[in-house]
Amino acid sequence: MTLSAEIITNPSNRLTYMEPIKGDAHGKNLLSMYQLSDKDIYDYIKEAKAAETILRDPSRRGVTLLPHYVLKAVMRQPSTRTGGSMTTAMEKLGGSAQLISGMGSSSEAKGESLADSWAAFATQADILGIRTAEDEGPAFAAQAIATAAERGSLLNLVPVINLGDGRNEHPTQALGDMFTIYKKFGSFEGLTATVVGDQERYRAHHSFMIGAVALGMSIRAVESPAALVPPALVEQLGDSLTRTDDLDEAMRAADVLYLGRNPDEYAGDDSQEKLRSKQLARDYASWIVDYDRIQQMSPDSIVLHPRPRRDELHPSVDTDPRMKDVEQMANMIPMRMAIIARHLGKSIAKSL
Amino acid sequence: MTLSAEIITNPSNRLTYMEPIKGDAHGKNLLSMYQLSDKDIYDYIKEAKAAETILRDPSRRGVTLLPHYVLKAVMRQPSTRTGGSMTTAMEKLGGSAQLISGMGSSSEAKGESLADSWAAFATQADILGIRTAEDEGPAFAAQAIATAAERGSLLNLVPVINLGDGRNEHPTQALGDMFTIYKKFGSFEGLTATVVGDQERYRAHHSFMIGAVALGMSIRAVESPAALVPPALVEQLGDSLTRTDDLDEAMRAADVLYLGRNPDEYAGDDSQEKLRSKQLARDYASWIVDYDRIQQMSPDSIVLHPRPRRDELHPSVDTDPRMKDVEQMANMIPMRMAIIARHLGKSIAKSL
Amino acid sequence: MTLSAEIITNPSNRLTYMEPIKGDAHGKNLLSMYQLSDKDIYDYIKEAKAAETILRDPSRRGVTLLPHYVLKAVMRQPSTRTGGSMTTAMEKLGGSAQLISGMGSSSEAKGESLADSWAAFATQADILGIRTAEDEGPAFAAQAIATAAERGSLLNLVPVINLGDGRNEHPTQALGDMFTIYKKFGSFEGLTATVVGDQERYRAHHSFMIGAVALGMSIRAVESPAALVPPALVEQLGDSLTRTDDLDEAMRAADVLYLGRNPDEYAGDDSQEKLRSKQLARDYASWIVDYDRIQQMSPDSIVLHPRPRRDELHPSVDTDPRMKDVEQMANMIPMRMAIIARHLGKSIAKSL
Repeated sequence: MTLSAEIITNPSNRLTYMEPIKGDAHGKNLLSMYQLSDKDIYDYIKEAKAAETILRDPSRRGVTLLPHYVLKAVMRQPSTRTGGSMTTAMEKLGGSAQLISGMGSSSEAKGESLADSWAAFATQADILGIRTAEDEGPAFAAQAIATAAERGSLLNLVPVINLGDGRNEHPTQALGDMFTIYKKFGSFEGLTATVVGDQERYRAHHSFMIGAVALGMSIRAVESPAALVPPALVEQLGDSLTRTDDLDEAMRAADVLYLGRNPDEYAGDDSQEKLRSKQLARDYASWIVDYDRIQQMSPDSIVLHPRPRRDELHPSVDTDPRMKDVEQMANMIPMRMAIIARHLGKSIAKSL
Repeated sequence: MTLSAEIITNPSNRLTYMEPIKGDAHGKNLLSMYQLSDKDIYDYIKEAKAAETILRDPSRRGVTLLPHYVLKAVMRQPSTRTGGSMTTAMEKLGGSAQLISGMGSSSEAKGESLADSWAAFATQADILGIRTAEDEGPAFAAQAIATAAERGSLLNLVPVINLGDGRNEHPTQALGDMFTIYKKFGSFEGLTATVVGDQERYRAHHSFMIGAVALGMSIRAVESPAALVPPALVEQLGDSLTRTDDLDEAMRAADVLYLGRNPDEYAGDDSQEKLRSKQLARDYASWIVDYDRIQQMSPDSIVLHPRPRRDELHPSVDTDPRMKDVEQMANMIPMRMAIIARHLGKSIAKSL
Repeated sequence: MTLSAEIITNPSNRLTYMEPIKGDAHGKNLLSMYQLSDKDIYDYIKEAKAAETILRDPSRRGVTLLPHYVLKAVMRQPSTRTGGSMTTAMEKLGGSAQLISGMGSSSEAKGESLADSWAAFATQADILGIRTAEDEGPAFAAQAIATAAERGSLLNLVPVINLGDGRNEHPTQALGDMFTIYKKFGSFEGLTATVVGDQERYRAHHSFMIGAVALGMSIRAVESPAALVPPALVEQLGDSLTRTDDLDEAMRAADVLYLGRNPDEYAGDDSQEKLRSKQLARDYASWIVDYDRIQQMSPDSIVLHPRPRRDELHPSVDTDPRMKDVEQMANMIPMRMAIIARHLGKSIAKSL
């Protein structure tokens, strides 16, 4: 979470590959929610709505918008859900998709640098989706690819889409979340979202809060002392953020309850980290949302979780009409179609 | 092998997601050969014949019947053959296919329940092929997906195709086997099939016998005392089943000799299991079919094996004209095209 | 490197599945550069030029030349680059592609012979790309497939494309290299290529030298005493090959500098092998090409490396205009499109 709008918009900064979208995503990378204004997010939602209409049409099920285009989804952290959602989205657009999954790659085993690997992938694809265990890994890839492009070595522009980078961001997830909220409420202004979990290291929370605040929502972050909202993010969100340790009060105030699992794959081994992990596990145990607890929420509210879930969202809630977590996964397909299409300069809405 | 026609057709039973096909496969799961009447099997064969005609046509090689449809073949037991055959079949229909292979998935590593994983896959596909080490794993997946669909969380019906579930069934294999027999004999009534191997745990044998008997064939099961035909299956097959330990006599009586390898990946570790394994290995050693042994069979008979094979089918037979085991693999492509098309409500024959 | 033109063209030899291309690649395997005359290589280049024109056209990005055709790229040695390049090439031609990666396969785990596995793959694909750790592994596969085809078990011819076989050859890489040289120089006659690295075991070097000499180029092989050009290859290349240990002199003489990494995955464990490895590592250390060293080359020369690279090509050279190693990777897509199309009897140039 070291990125900020200031860094992005400063043209003298080396991070110019992270441009604001400003109404035109064509050829640009999607690395951070900070690149998006409220109007930009509405543009993605408009395209996702068109995509969903096409998917629901039994005579269509998709649209041939990107024939001969190739997506590579390179998941350096193992992933079935996000990777599989991106590949399906590309195929629903008439393009081809390849999922490259796992921690390492054979080229690294042969001693190749990561920058060289990213340039290699860019020579074989029209667009790249990238997940890394390292913060800002996709931004690093984008820079390596921009360098190769400047030297005239690539046939085409190859936009990079961040599919989750370490403890930093997960912008395509956040855009799908906003689409789910939009489908329920029709707008965002004035809504309150209660966000529960590891605020420090759960990347979907970060991107969600940045996007929600850009759209005029208020955030209540339910925090563990072991996993606070990062200071840079606190500063960016300003008055829109309220921090609390009272989950039940925050649930009663919520239009949207946004949960996330304990991302304990990042837990370290030293004694301080172990104390931290213990505290966080205790807090997660106190945050379990089950059938009884959900009843205190407004009947008009919704509950989101970017899955996979563990105990924090108890299966006893699954039949409650407020639960939108499965639909939220389904919404990722039209939203990721929207993202791929826009960053390749196409419009799904025009195919309706 | 706990399933029976009674369970399936009883509408008050919770297993209603395992409906009889009764002439209309559209939107239904294919979980067990018990779902199929003889007429249903002929419907698949008719579609497979059309598919084969198209595949053989050098100007076609396939047909654009399912554009924008996505198949995910989720192989929780490692598989290159069945998984690769399903993906090729889908691509030959103009759809897209994704193979997810291996024992675990990253979501499970993050602590997700299997029911949640199946719902997630269903949000990303139009049809799912599923292989599991557990008996009735695909039926469990179908139930989880039906629950998600009832809650309105899915855009479309997502049929589940069983690609092998533990020691239970392998219906797509059996349908391909029936297609291979049909291509040789033109009908089934009155034919005798001799089935050799681990009758208890080799799932392809179970599905083969159910389908063959539905079509009017007689079965001779060559058994090891360590691996008998399951009692429930014995009861279902009734008079059509003869059990024997005399392979040579059964080979001479056979129109179709159906072999299978020793599925020793299911062998347990305790002392009784080890005794059982030893006995079964001895019997497999006595069943080796080689060039000399095959000569006692009728010149009009054929030999099938769902591959991979080990010693039980010796390479010395490979040049014998009765060997149909490679053609049998090739026949899986048009048959799996037929299955995918029918369960998505399409007809290949109409594209001829 | 036991293959020679004599073996190939001798019709009484069992290796008849390795035919000379002689102007018609349709249905033939591509196993060795020895199959190609200079005219044949120009035919691939002509098709690759057409493919590149189509890829650069923002309104096309590919061509629907092989609808319903399926490529399986079976990488028995791990590979992201070559495998991913083949799959992208096939998808750019409007076909479908499946990447099967890793050392083993589930069928082998079940005890299947390699010959059986290759026949199985051939029943599921229209064309196979194959990489093996064993020398002539793809040739072995081609033989197994030819046997299955002769028995009438396959619906169609299934050409095998060698994607790298042990320490022997890498013909698709060499054809992409020739395309890169052609784009710079427009012809080959009279050019000098300096080839540096493990001349014994780096397969890309072998294929490169065979192709370059067929096209009229001269080769300077910079050798380590621990890794000499194989005697059979020395004999084939004749007067066109000069062997030296003076890298700097050979760089000054070069129109094309061709580097390769130390393929130490083939290094053995015994004491003689360890001595050999030490010597080779010392020589690689003395061959490092960096910014200073590259300055002695002609301004009109180019530098190639089939990537991945290690220290032998220092990142300080990356901004030098002579560096064509990233473009060389990009050129693999149109060249592999050309290869796939030609061996399936299609012409990209006719689609322009």
